[in-house]
Amino acid sequence: MTNQNSPHTVLRARESEVVIGPDQPFVMIGERINPTNRAKLSETMEAHDMSVVQRDAETQVTAGAQVLDINVGTAFGEESEIMPLAVKAVLEVVDVPLSIDSPDPTAIGAGLQAYREVCGSAGKPLINSTTAEAERLDEIIPLAVEYGAAVIGLTNDEEGIPETQERRFELAVEILEKAEGAGVPREDLLIDGLTLTVGADHHAALCTLTVTERVTKELALNTTSGASNVSFGLPGRRELNTTFLTMMISRGLTSAITNPLRPEIIKTVQASDLFLGLDPHALRWIQSHRE
Amino acid sequence: MTNQNSPHTVLRARESEVVIGPDQPFVMIGERINPTNRAKLSETMEAHDMSVVQRDAETQVTAGAQVLDINVGTAFGEESEIMPLAVKAVLEVVDVPLSIDSPDPTAIGAGLQAYREVCGSAGKPLINSTTAEAERLDEIIPLAVEYGAAVIGLTNDEEGIPETQERRFELAVEILEKAEGAGVPREDLLIDGLTLTVGADHHAALCTLTVTERVTKELALNTTSGASNVSFGLPGRRELNTTFLTMMISRGLTSAITNPLRPEIIKTVQASDLFLGLDPHALRWIQSHRE
Repeated sequence: MTNQNSPHTVLRARESEVVIGPDQPFVMIGERINPTNRAKLSETMEAHDMSVVQRDAETQVTAGAQVLDINVGTAFGEESEIMPLAVKAVLEVVDVPLSIDSPDPTAIGAGLQAYREVCGSAGKPLINSTTAEAERLDEIIPLAVEYGAAVIGLTNDEEGIPETQERRFELAVEILEKAEGAGVPREDLLIDGLTLTVGADHHAALCTLTVTERVTKELALNTTSGASNVSFGLPGRRELNTTFLTMMISRGLTSAITNPLRPEIIKTVQASDLFLGLDPHALRWIQSHRE
Repeated sequence: MTNQNSPHTVLRARESEVVIGPDQPFVMIGERINPTNRAKLSETMEAHDMSVVQRDAETQVTAGAQVLDINVGTAFGEESEIMPLAVKAVLEVVDVPLSIDSPDPTAIGAGLQAYREVCGSAGKPLINSTTAEAERLDEIIPLAVEYGAAVIGLTNDEEGIPETQERRFELAVEILEKAEGAGVPREDLLIDGLTLTVGADHHAALCTLTVTERVTKELALNTTSGASNVSFGLPGRRELNTTFLTMMISRGLTSAITNPLRPEIIKTVQASDLFLGLDPHALRWIQSHRE
C-alpha cells in the first residue's frame, strides 16, 4: 500500500482534461463561486442572473484554477433549479471540469445532469462531497456511479469531526470501501482530512497533516483540502495559510479548494511544484516572474 | 529505527541551554557573522575590532536566533587567531550557544578552546562541520570528543555531493558510525542533507527533502540546513526560500543556519511551529502579532 502507483484522478470537461496526482502539478479548485459573504454574487444568482458567476469563472481560470467549484448556496430554497443554470453558464465561458458542491443531493444530481448535457457522457466532474455518514454515502455514491463522477470524501461521520488522526483515517477507509464496493474506481475518490483552526486546538493542524500523509502513503489516494480554516480567528492569516498549504503539499496533498485570485496562493503552489520536481527546468516559475 | 525517542541535541552556553529536537520549537542558527559579501564586518574582523561582530550577535539574538554561527572567513590567513577573539567577543554580549564554523580544523580547535574558557567544561558548542571525507572526519570528530561538542555532518565525501538521496543517506550513516565509534553520542550529530539550486536540477530540492525525512525517521537524528541555496540564480528568492524551509520543517528538519533578520523567515518558523503543535494555544504566534 504505497503511492508508487501514483493514483490519477482524471476530470474532463468538453475538450479539456485535468489530472490530479502526486506526479502532476498541484491542482487548484477555485472556490469563489459560492454566495457565502458575497452579496452581489448571491443577489444575482437568486435572480437567475449568471453574469457574476461567469465573470468569477473567467477570472479564476485566468488566475490559474484548473477546476472550479460551483456552490449556489442554500438560502433561496431552489438550489436544484439554480445549480444547473450555474453549471451551464460557467461551461459557456470556460472549458474546465467543475466540482458540484451542495449539501442537497437533489441539487448535486441536477448539476451533474446539466454537466452531462453540455460535456456529453465522456465528461467527468467532481462531487463535493460525501462524508462517512451512512445516509450521505447512500445518497452521493450512487450519483457518482450514475454520472461517472469523481467524489470528495470528508472524514467526518454522524458523531462529527473526530479529534484524532487515527479515527479520521478509519473514516477514510470506510468511505473508500463503500465507494469501491459500489463501483467507484478508487482513483476517483479524493479524501479531505478536514481542517479546524489551530486557534482552538494546537494539535488541529498536525492531525490534518498526518491524515493527509497517511491517506497518500497507506491508501494511495488523492487528497484535497479547504485549508484556510486552519487560521480562523488568528492574526496573520495570509502567512498561516500559505505555510499550512505548503506543509500539506509537502505531506502529499494533491489538490485544494482555494482562492486562485490570491497571488500568495499561486506563488506557494508554483514554488511547491518546483521543489517536488514538477516544474522541469523551473520554466513555469521563471515564466511567472516575467509577466 | 523511528524518531519516537525524539533525539535531543542539547547545546549550552554560560547559563543558557538550547534543545534541538522534533518535539521542540525550531532552532534558528544565526548566519550573519560571516565575512562573505560583508565588507565592513570583514574589515573590522581583520583589524581585530570585534564591534561589528558584537552588534551582529545582539541583533540576531534579539530577532530570535537561539544559536549563532561564527565564521571569520579564510581571507586573512589568521583564522586561528581571529576565531577565539570573535568567540569571546560574542559571549561577552550574548549568552547563547555558538556554532564554530571554519574549513580549518586548527581554527575550530582554537574556537572551541576559547568557548570552554568562557563557558567552562559544561559549555557545549556546535562544530560546523565535518563531511564524510575520511581526512575531515579524522580531524573533526576528535575535536568533538575532546570538547564535548555537537557536530554538523554534511552528506558529501571526496567525490563531492552525490546526486541521489540514497547515496547522501549512506554518507549520513557513515558519519554516524564514525562519530558514534569515536564516542560522540548520536544525539550530538546533526545531519545536513545539503541543498543545491533547483535552477540547475529540478530534482535537487526533492533530493534534500527526502534525505532530511529519512535521516529523521530512519536514523532518529536531528538535522540542519543552509536552505537558501535552493533558490540560487532564480527570481522570487524570498518566496522560494520560505516555501522550501516550510517543506523541510514539514519533513522533519529541526534546525537551520539562516538569517533571523528576515521577517519572513521568522514568520515561517513561527507558523511551522504552530502547525506542528509546538506553540500551545498559539500564544507565541499571537504575541508576535501584538508587538
